Amino acid sequence: MARVSRVGLVAKQRVEAAAAVLNELARWLTARGIGVVFETETAYLAGAQGETASKDDLPKACDFIVLLGGDGTLIGMARRIASAAANVPVAGVNFGSLGFLTEITLEDLYPSLEAVLNGVAPIEDRMMLRAQTVRRGQTFADELVLNDVVITKAALSRIIELAVSVGGDSVMRVRADGLIVATPTGSTAYNLAAGGPIVHPEVDAILLTPIAPHMLTNRPLMVDGSSEISVVPDMNGNEEVFVTFDGQSGHALQSGDTIVVRRAAHPLRLVRAPNRSYFDVLRQKLKWGER
Amino acid sequence: MARVSRVGLVAKQRVEAAAAVLNELARWLTARGIGVVFETETAYLAGAQGETASKDDLPKACDFIVLLGGDGTLIGMARRIASAAANVPVAGVNFGSLGFLTEITLEDLYPSLEAVLNGVAPIEDRMMLRAQTVRRGQTFADELVLNDVVITKAALSRIIELAVSVGGDSVMRVRADGLIVATPTGSTAYNLAAGGPIVHPEVDAILLTPIAPHMLTNRPLMVDGSSEISVVPDMNGNEEVFVTFDGQSGHALQSGDTIVVRRAAHPLRLVRAPNRSYFDVLRQKLKWGER
Amino acid sequence: MARVSRVGLVAKQRVEAAAAVLNELARWLTARGIGVVFETETAYLAGAQGETASKDDLPKACDFIVLLGGDGTLIGMARRIASAAANVPVAGVNFGSLGFLTEITLEDLYPSLEAVLNGVAPIEDRMMLRAQTVRRGQTFADELVLNDVVITKAALSRIIELAVSVGGDSVMRVRADGLIVATPTGSTAYNLAAGGPIVHPEVDAILLTPIAPHMLTNRPLMVDGSSEISVVPDMNGNEEVFVTFDGQSGHALQSGDTIVVRRAAHPLRLVRAPNRSYFDVLRQKLKWGER
Amino acid sequence: MARVSRVGLVAKQRVEAAAAVLNELARWLTARGIGVVFETETAYLAGAQGETASKDDLPKACDFIVLLGGDGTLIGMARRIASAAANVPVAGVNFGSLGFLTEITLEDLYPSLEAVLNGVAPIEDRMMLRAQTVRRGQTFADELVLNDVVITKAALSRIIELAVSVGGDSVMRVRADGLIVATPTGSTAYNLAAGGPIVHPEVDAILLTPIAPHMLTNRPLMVDGSSEISVVPDMNGNEEVFVTFDGQSGHALQSGDTIVVRRAAHPLRLVRAPNRSYFDVLRQKLKWGER
Repeated sequence: MARVSRVGLVAKQRVEAAAAVLNELARWLTARGIGVVFETETAYLAGAQGETASKDDLPKACDFIVLLGGDGTLIGMARRIASAAANVPVAGVNFGSLGFLTEITLEDLYPSLEAVLNGVAPIEDRMMLRAQTVRRGQTFADELVLNDVVITKAALSRIIELAVSVGGDSVMRVRADGLIVATPTGSTAYNLAAGGPIVHPEVDAILLTPIAPHMLTNRPLMVDGSSEISVVPDMNGNEEVFVTFDGQSGHALQSGDTIVVRRAAHPLRLVRAPNRSYFDVLRQKLKWGER
Repeated sequence: MARVSRVGLVAKQRVEAAAAVLNELARWLTARGIGVVFETETAYLAGAQGETASKDDLPKACDFIVLLGGDGTLIGMARRIASAAANVPVAGVNFGSLGFLTEITLEDLYPSLEAVLNGVAPIEDRMMLRAQTVRRGQTFADELVLNDVVITKAALSRIIELAVSVGGDSVMRVRADGLIVATPTGSTAYNLAAGGPIVHPEVDAILLTPIAPHMLTNRPLMVDGSSEISVVPDMNGNEEVFVTFDGQSGHALQSGDTIVVRRAAHPLRLVRAPNRSYFDVLRQKLKWGER
Repeated sequence: MARVSRVGLVAKQRVEAAAAVLNELARWLTARGIGVVFETETAYLAGAQGETASKDDLPKACDFIVLLGGDGTLIGMARRIASAAANVPVAGVNFGSLGFLTEITLEDLYPSLEAVLNGVAPIEDRMMLRAQTVRRGQTFADELVLNDVVITKAALSRIIELAVSVGGDSVMRVRADGLIVATPTGSTAYNLAAGGPIVHPEVDAILLTPIAPHMLTNRPLMVDGSSEISVVPDMNGNEEVFVTFDGQSGHALQSGDTIVVRRAAHPLRLVRAPNRSYFDVLRQKLKWGER
Repeated sequence: MARVSRVGLVAKQRVEAAAAVLNELARWLTARGIGVVFETETAYLAGAQGETASKDDLPKACDFIVLLGGDGTLIGMARRIASAAANVPVAGVNFGSLGFLTEITLEDLYPSLEAVLNGVAPIEDRMMLRAQTVRRGQTFADELVLNDVVITKAALSRIIELAVSVGGDSVMRVRADGLIVATPTGSTAYNLAAGGPIVHPEVDAILLTPIAPHMLTNRPLMVDGSSEISVVPDMNGNEEVFVTFDGQSGHALQSGDTIVVRRAAHPLRLVRAPNRSYFDVLRQKLKWGER
């Protein structure tokens, strides 16, 4: 990792406790001659002066981001970094409850920063996915996700039918509540609830996990990370079908729409906590240590 | 079963092939001195003359119903019979593809009818559930179901949280896509897709099956058939939560609503196919016979 | 429950900490004019004088049993009570870690005893199963279980095939690692690990849960509590098949053997902890309370 | 693929129907100037004259193998090819029932052979695993598998406990019936029955799937194909623990044994049927096409 000269600071909204941490962080960085850019709302939360940038502009305004909040906050920032085609690494610091992504505790914060500034921090590439909704030959939506793209039925529908193909080969017609297309990072999110496996982030693969499939043999399926996946909903009846991106945005589908999912151009560069393996986090989050 | 003097005939809409069967059936019954009442749209389908009754009135207008169609058609009629507090048995005859409920084939039709008229047909009681939505102390909705009551999230929501209690005892807070409250009959429908067990219709129990639960230990739970189940959605955020009845009707919930589910006053009385056990149907539907 | 005049005391072997509790218990009972019978090894553990009875004789030598230990100890005693055709209730007291069956804590102990002596303790009937191995027309084994009867493959076998019938009706041929036939009490034991549902002890049903079935549609199946279940292993090849009873005893099967399972003549009468519902225990054991 | 000059022929034992196919195959190859080597027992089955080689020697005696039989037969040959450090491709031809590995039908046979001889046949690399049992510092067993290495309990044991680590990092202690370490090829075998996902053979990953785990959060886990996996059974009690290789061989473990699993040096080179994708085979085997 190249030398860090400007650090972006962003915190989850309305987390009052973050203010003191943010101000101390800014002083600590300034004392080391490193520039600080506050995300606009974060500056307001911290009552901080100085340079600011919007959430969308932050990825281009700094060369490293420290994020205080939960996994949802980090996912949102990851999507903005990818949209900006920026390549800045992120350190996710949690406020109390360990996240799968925000695994750095407040005690780990300064040791982690030292490691980053000294160029010795462990940084992990996390595959992201690009999902495009193609409607009448045009790209209607184009989104980047860190966890998953989900195609799903409406609340009052009974079931939807999706035609799934991989690399042009027909895979299956799924009759289900929906289908999750997930990254290894997303494997411990919705995918796990729907019966999918846990996938180490180093595995170069994409997960296809049906939600409550009518056919019991429609089991979670993993394909190579370089695969192009197409999903076409069968909307001959009056079914309503939706697509959501990381559970943060989404839209309704129309008859004839195709969702095309493939690996995004850039992965998220995630700073790992020192002395904590992926399995350590997993064990703690899933309470494997307990009897 | 008391002597049958008037038979109601009902068929799935737009199934042209039913016309000939219906007319032959009517002649066969008339020749035996038994009255025939056509459901109104079925009379139109068959081009039949004579007495008719609406779907809602049919249960009170006859003492036995022959239904031609699929499981969905039979579920709809079961709900109408229960709403009318009628007690008429139903024989479900399928057109080609065996149903869990419409298990009588066209070849079985006349032998089954003979058995019914001779009072020797096997008739099975199928528990139904009554679901009430209580809103601000009033009963907002009151529905009868043969398969299931489902409380579920909207398409663009991420997760809902439901407080579930049984007989006044708190059971769990489920964070999931939703919760299925099913009868044994409903166990082979949505419940099975969501990971629940198969329950023989003789078992006096109600199934509580979470859909894609966030907590992996929230497994399907069976409680006694006499239990009263309450489900209260936590709608502190801007979650949208819905309830559906047998997948055929439903409505949106409001903050403070409670869904109360208990056994309905009357079961459905279902005529079984001769020489075919519950397990025979199960094996065929789930393809257990195949290697 | 009839008046208690003689209490049997039994503790898990080698639990040194039980000695003090046992001696205090004996004094407390004696002071109330109630007879005390120590199980022989428990007397030795406690260094107690006075009347003793073997584990097998204890159920007939008293009219109430207090058991200190874990679920395994209680299951062993339940099987002895049932074998003796005795009807004595049992209070299961745990030493630190709550059990599904030994749910009374040391703090609950004397309040529970008071409730039992005053005839106001909540006592729950827990269905037990009787399993018979029939070999060449003879009963080769005849066992009573509280949790489950398991038919299973040997370690080096790949798969076994079992023909299962209920009430004389053929249900399925299961190709799997094995089959669990469980009571509602046993639903939270091996059955849960194998993918079966949680069943409230009031439900009158028997669970049939295949272990790692080759056919994905061979899902857990619940049948009525009055059902007679037969399992016949297909041993045409050189498969080794075993049957185990509550995981505590078992034997190898031979070609032609049939395992017949039905409800035992008497249920276990289990004293419940005061102010703790079945669901309270479930929530604590399965950690549903935690986020 | 280099030019084929000598073809090995091997058939499943006691498949009489194979004789005619084998003889025709030999004539067809000879007519094209290609040498034929019969596996010894296959020569006997076919009543064939000419050159023979034992199962163990065949991989070194030819540059392409045609195998007639089922998946079990092909797995056995794959293990022999890998043990011989040979690199010969195999075409698996089934006799009636499509296999996951023996996907070439009799009608496909000659077109497939033509494609192989012309150097245009699709050949897929299938990762194999090497499993070593380390006992007191020595390699006690050293096996190559195409599907899976399984560590498992004995029939009469209740549960075993295994300490699992990946790349030296502790992953979990599994209390279960056992643990499956599988290749993508093995994902559709035992792994699928135990609840694991389907993994496309192109994915470079190894599956760790617990069998009936006591802890419900111990879900199937995928790690990178370059990972080294260690499994140490906890044998403090009198547990019996076994390891099996592709379900074809195995041995008992002793206290202190470690099973080390990593990618084998060479993959199996499997000839694919023309015009049939991996997903086509999957759909047919899992009956996804059926309603």
